[in-house]
Amino acid sequence: MSDAPTPLPPEIEARLDVLTTGVDLGDPKLLDAMRRDLGERLREGRTLTVYLGLDPTSPNVHLGHAVVLNCLKRFQDDGHRIVLVIGDFTASIGDPSGRSKTRPPLSREEIEHHAATYSEQAFKVLDRSRTEVRYNSEWLAGLDLEGVVRLAASMTLAQMLVREDFRKRHEEGVPIHLHEFLYPLAQGYDACHLEADVQVGGTDQLFNLMAGRDVMKGRGLEPQVCLTMPILPGTDGKLKMSKSYGNDIGLTLEPADMFGKVMSIPDEAMGDFFRLASGLTQAEAEARLAVLADGSLHPRQAKAELGRLIVARWHDEEAAREAEAAFDKQFKEREIPDELPDLAVPEGAAVALDLVAAAPGVKSRGEARRLIQGGGVTLNGDRLEAWDAPLPGELAGRVLKIGKRRIFRLS
Amino acid sequence: MSDAPTPLPPEIEARLDVLTTGVDLGDPKLLDAMRRDLGERLREGRTLTVYLGLDPTSPNVHLGHAVVLNCLKRFQDDGHRIVLVIGDFTASIGDPSGRSKTRPPLSREEIEHHAATYSEQAFKVLDRSRTEVRYNSEWLAGLDLEGVVRLAASMTLAQMLVREDFRKRHEEGVPIHLHEFLYPLAQGYDACHLEADVQVGGTDQLFNLMAGRDVMKGRGLEPQVCLTMPILPGTDGKLKMSKSYGNDIGLTLEPADMFGKVMSIPDEAMGDFFRLASGLTQAEAEARLAVLADGSLHPRQAKAELGRLIVARWHDEEAAREAEAAFDKQFKEREIPDELPDLAVPEGAAVALDLVAAAPGVKSRGEARRLIQGGGVTLNGDRLEAWDAPLPGELAGRVLKIGKRRIFRLS
Repeated sequence: MSDAPTPLPPEIEARLDVLTTGVDLGDPKLLDAMRRDLGERLREGRTLTVYLGLDPTSPNVHLGHAVVLNCLKRFQDDGHRIVLVIGDFTASIGDPSGRSKTRPPLSREEIEHHAATYSEQAFKVLDRSRTEVRYNSEWLAGLDLEGVVRLAASMTLAQMLVREDFRKRHEEGVPIHLHEFLYPLAQGYDACHLEADVQVGGTDQLFNLMAGRDVMKGRGLEPQVCLTMPILPGTDGKLKMSKSYGNDIGLTLEPADMFGKVMSIPDEAMGDFFRLASGLTQAEAEARLAVLADGSLHPRQAKAELGRLIVARWHDEEAAREAEAAFDKQFKEREIPDELPDLAVPEGAAVALDLVAAAPGVKSRGEARRLIQGGGVTLNGDRLEAWDAPLPGELAGRVLKIGKRRIFRLS
Repeated sequence: MSDAPTPLPPEIEARLDVLTTGVDLGDPKLLDAMRRDLGERLREGRTLTVYLGLDPTSPNVHLGHAVVLNCLKRFQDDGHRIVLVIGDFTASIGDPSGRSKTRPPLSREEIEHHAATYSEQAFKVLDRSRTEVRYNSEWLAGLDLEGVVRLAASMTLAQMLVREDFRKRHEEGVPIHLHEFLYPLAQGYDACHLEADVQVGGTDQLFNLMAGRDVMKGRGLEPQVCLTMPILPGTDGKLKMSKSYGNDIGLTLEPADMFGKVMSIPDEAMGDFFRLASGLTQAEAEARLAVLADGSLHPRQAKAELGRLIVARWHDEEAAREAEAAFDKQFKEREIPDELPDLAVPEGAAVALDLVAAAPGVKSRGEARRLIQGGGVTLNGDRLEAWDAPLPGELAGRVLKIGKRRIFRLS
């Protein structure tokens, strides 16, 4: 009984609830342990050092980043020291094995430009005057081989191979170059240098954050609390939101573009967007999702509400209303009646011409070709650019529009 | 046909024969490839850089080291640049994981003292005026994290796990700390820094030497030729000769001690000693081993010949003759007659006293204890130091000597 931890005062528990809002560590036991550790540090009344590592390979902050920045903001509001660590050191090296074509080394100018743009955008969430921005080359560039040996001694190969990506590659015989092990260690060294109390990140960063704990232990430091936030999907609703997948919604988008992008997400992604990107509290988000689920809120309405909330959060209420009105107007103009005449795709149709020539009212293949070349034929809104453009495999259900009036649903 | 390599001139082939005397790479194809590569470099008429890495954890050079030093000497005689690389960098770090108790970090003074003693002894084989001694901290200490990342990128995990020791530990779940991967890489960096043409070592170093090739390739350098020499067993005839196993024969031993140690090797080890340590050519060594095998040379005679050859090599002929005479005299004095009375080991005998009290003529356990305490009782020549010294497991066949006259063969 004497080993049971002293209960935390209700005031601390309440602050913990706020600070760990939305945190997902994949394992409730791990979350309990981290919460407990964080609670003890709060009880000591210290100003905690809380940091986020940023990869300066892309300068733009999107709604996905904002999920983690929101978590940092809650710590800032609780009075702690917030540090953004720009990972310029690894970005400046790139991938020396040449394995990854997507990671060219960045120049000093690129890195600084990205970092400046990035932090500028992060200040849409964080209080600029109370946020430190640090470059990790400051402490990593001076690390010598002896330092690296000591750093590497703090982790084992087995611990590294816990990482999903490494384990799979090792099992499948895909080469792992040894410097790849140095990156999590170098990240862990960031935590040591800052004497971090808390590191935040996306759930996909959990391994790196936990590696930081091992490195800190290996150097006789108290290991940091790791808090990871769920990953927001992109506008495709499937992949992680990322500039490199082209599915991101940037924080600096104009209201109309931002609203339009939100309207383009699939219905299945609305849960994640309401919970992670709407700015609503967890309870409010769940309430909206409940009425959506029971059918009393139409998905289109729900999505418009999400669009308004998101634009209002990053611009203002008026911008949100205007963006919605503009979207509705454009949508009406483009609107396709629900009831459309069917057009059966002729057997063996291979190119655009075969399809258009089969439409009622098109008298010949010559006319079909002229119509296409005139630019007035669209398939699901995309213009058919050439008569010999190959047709997509799945045509059934798509809308073929010839000029303004001849509209068909393909079957 | 056009891809067949141009044959080397007979003069180069003859030099190659000398330079690769005794080299064992475990794989005839690998030896062929290395020989060919070395031959091409000789054909270019360049002065080659040939080096040996030395671990300064022990200051003493023994017959085992001499095998590799002899190989270096042949390169020196062929006119090449010889470098002894003192591995002070890793020795100064020790094992930061604390896993290996046998590798404490050495101080600068210890390292320099060891290195000085070591190279002094190496000059018993090499020409001092034409041998460079370098400390690898010279180029390794200044390597920064970026340099280490680039170095580590030159090898993969799979390549590292080719090493027997790593693979076994990985398979058996014995922790491999990540800094252990940095040591072969750092050794490989030595080769890069020296722009080595050839690295020599013991066969147990083959992995590290070959890793040096990978590192050199990764840095756009021509990979070095690796030549490994067989491992000389110690005086036990089983383990590698090593100070830490206490089975070494140091090059600086006095003639009598050196001769005595050679006489103590088991008969089975004579092949290795004749081939690797006698100073005879391969042909001469094989000739002596042939007469030993056909019974026309008695093993004791053969071993004495080996003792004379080895003492003559590291001291001189006269010292060798004197050492043998002294050994013979001492041996005669200690000589044990072939016919000895048997003494059955009493059942349950656990300590020295139990055995001695059972010998004819010893009247009581009290007398037995006094005899042992007086220092006059030996077992196979080793004094029994205390009445309660535990008896070795296998006693049958050993000789128990009580005082000068009471001698028994145990059964």
